[in-house]
Amino acid sequence: MKQLGRHILAEFTGCDTEVLNNIEQIKTTLLEAARQSGATIVDSVFHQYNPYGLSGVVVIAESHISIHTWPEYGYAAVDFFTCGDQVDPWKACRYMKKKLACPEMHTQEISRGIPGGPDEIIPHKPLDKPSFNRKPA
Amino acid sequence: MKQLGRHILAEFTGCDTEVLNNIEQIKTTLLEAARQSGATIVDSVFHQYNPYGLSGVVVIAESHISIHTWPEYGYAAVDFFTCGDQVDPWKACRYMKKKLACPEMHTQEISRGIPGGPDEIIPHKPLDKPSFNRKPA
Repeated sequence: MKQLGRHILAEFTGCDTEVLNNIEQIKTTLLEAARQSGATIVDSVFHQYNPYGLSGVVVIAESHISIHTWPEYGYAAVDFFTCGDQVDPWKACRYMKKKLACPEMHTQEISRGIPGGPDEIIPHKPLDKPSFNRKPA
Repeated sequence: MKQLGRHILAEFTGCDTEVLNNIEQIKTTLLEAARQSGATIVDSVFHQYNPYGLSGVVVIAESHISIHTWPEYGYAAVDFFTCGDQVDPWKACRYMKKKLACPEMHTQEISRGIPGGPDEIIPHKPLDKPSFNRKPA
């Protein structure tokens, strides 16, 4: 694979249910997690569900960090998808685990990029000007 | 695992580079993909990068659909994370493949939920009132 990014899928269980249902706290925490990883925050969106649970996504210049919570299960599904070598998604992951008072997390890291060929890391943001050939309209 | 959701991670290669760099087209397409899957759209955010590439996330009541494009590689990383049995993430995935003029996609479907125990599907949205015990503040 020509790897562009690293994607951690984390299952956080046994979390503090109050935190999982507090949109302001989750918003602050997810944004800080992005900063902890070294990412550049581009935009974010958060939504509280009725009767409980919430979703949040922080778009970063290096992809995204997202959370979906089920306070009724003490569970959150959290994704840390980052590209480039300037960002460490594990820093964000460890920060979130701590802030959600999560005693146990299960994670898997998946490489994102162009499948096939020998494994190599390709640049996230080429420094030279656009040179790709556009298809005819 | 007590499964709450299904998460398809898709690598789209050989895509139409113009489409991958057209934020209005990607926005329209990603929102329609969400509808095609049967999801309820909650919010969305899209961002165009300089000199090229874009990110987009559609938050749905059933989790999220996201895209990050690298027109210079003809590549897009697309996620379809849905919960509940009313939504089919594969419908969104097939729709996106077609709209990005993607000749080849590589996908993996990962179950999201609470690890451990026998495999079962647990309700995405319990119908009864909140009954979870909050931890003491």
